[in-house]
Amino acid sequence: MQTFVCFSGKPCLVPILVKSQYNILNPSSSTNTLRTAEPMTSPKWAQKTIMLPPQKRGCHLITPKILKDIEQDLSGFKCGLAHFFLQHTSASLTINENYDSDVREDTETFLNKIVPEGRSAPWKHTMEGPDDMPAHIKSSMFGCSLMVPITDGHLNMGTWQGIWLCEHRDHATPRRVVVTLNGV
Amino acid sequence: MQTFVCFSGKPCLVPILVKSQYNILNPSSSTNTLRTAEPMTSPKWAQKTIMLPPQKRGCHLITPKILKDIEQDLSGFKCGLAHFFLQHTSASLTINENYDSDVREDTETFLNKIVPEGRSAPWKHTMEGPDDMPAHIKSSMFGCSLMVPITDGHLNMGTWQGIWLCEHRDHATPRRVVVTLNGV
Amino acid sequence: MQTFVCFSGKPCLVPILVKSQYNILNPSSSTNTLRTAEPMTSPKWAQKTIMLPPQKRGCHLITPKILKDIEQDLSGFKCGLAHFFLQHTSASLTINENYDSDVREDTETFLNKIVPEGRSAPWKHTMEGPDDMPAHIKSSMFGCSLMVPITDGHLNMGTWQGIWLCEHRDHATPRRVVVTLNGV
Repeated sequence: MQTFVCFSGKPCLVPILVKSQYNILNPSSSTNTLRTAEPMTSPKWAQKTIMLPPQKRGCHLITPKILKDIEQDLSGFKCGLAHFFLQHTSASLTINENYDSDVREDTETFLNKIVPEGRSAPWKHTMEGPDDMPAHIKSSMFGCSLMVPITDGHLNMGTWQGIWLCEHRDHATPRRVVVTLNGV
Repeated sequence: MQTFVCFSGKPCLVPILVKSQYNILNPSSSTNTLRTAEPMTSPKWAQKTIMLPPQKRGCHLITPKILKDIEQDLSGFKCGLAHFFLQHTSASLTINENYDSDVREDTETFLNKIVPEGRSAPWKHTMEGPDDMPAHIKSSMFGCSLMVPITDGHLNMGTWQGIWLCEHRDHATPRRVVVTLNGV
Repeated sequence: MQTFVCFSGKPCLVPILVKSQYNILNPSSSTNTLRTAEPMTSPKWAQKTIMLPPQKRGCHLITPKILKDIEQDLSGFKCGLAHFFLQHTSASLTINENYDSDVREDTETFLNKIVPEGRSAPWKHTMEGPDDMPAHIKSSMFGCSLMVPITDGHLNMGTWQGIWLCEHRDHATPRRVVVTLNGV
């Protein structure tokens, strides 16, 4: 397919044709009039905070929970980006395999192996417990935010991709995720 | 609160109601007219490059410096995203704890422990000094860019979150960060 | 330079003046009329999927391939953001040094050193081969997406920065990258 789809408050001035393996998102966009009120192509922003209930230490697939909270909103976007921002420094968000829970367990095994904890650990910051400083390090390793493309009203992830919350504390609290949707 | 706030050059065609723990950002948006010149809801872009002075090797809290440079600009956005892009391959940006400087020192300890340096290191790329190849690896571990939600004119980070510049070279140079703001 | 450039469907209501080391992107923007049809400042979205051919295990510089596929489209944006999203969980995207191929080889050496593979590895998820679980872990370490600022029709990366595809499987398949461009 040879189409780079262009969304705008007005039509693309010059049709942009490049190699693309993806479907045409809005075939009619090249015939839009200049009416900026045209519903499908006016940029939109939406933002809210999702509360995730406390999880035990480890990696958790949260795609179903996230979708439940934003699915209806996503459906209003033909093309855009969804940003997920975890407001914490001792947990992380990552995208990884959505099927075999062993992958999540092995990832937790890896994190615990690579970041020392307890007596043998060299940390100065220990006042919040032996799992606290390792949690901060793991948080920076995987990061606290994700950006996922939106296509035709859905998160455009690969077949095997899912969103994980990695909880790095032993006694977790609820976790807040600021979701920002932007697109047309 | 049951509101997903929707910003656009025109009103949301269908009010989007989902669970939200966040405040209503622009309660009047649902009564906007179709006038696309309505100031608060017209998408805006802003971009500039911030120069960070040389820092010693280690992790540094740079939220105050960043805010000093963009605070006034942020105030023009009700809802949006702030992107920070470090134009270097031997330093990194990450979000982590903003209070106890021990967390930053322990993180530097971790990075030095996990990425070997000097005689025992297996690197082929050594012509720029023993700290150079480890710096490149650390840069990819933590990453060179951040995306933070903007809400009501402020970076919507958690209470304990701050922006860190992690300088991985022994003799650092000034570091450039391209800041891009987008929102309404 | 003391200018923070502001792009919008209409002029900035208040000129925003802050310290900036970057050039003025669109000096005429402050004299735009309220016509939202003004071509240069109307927000645009574009999205497509790029297919990367199979690569051998290791880190590969893909900036030339990426630019070949999106260069023409980028030229339509004065200011914006380019998002690259790898739809896989056993490879990763990162930004690092674009010159000496030793840096890419050393990075692969590091990844293999830090994530155990084969008999000595503690993984439960082994049914897809000894390189599979390590590949998932490496994918979360470096991440599957990148966001790069667009300035004056180009990816605004540093002089030495390039986009890498890190292939973590021994027998790789083609890899899909969803590219989303947004800007004015």
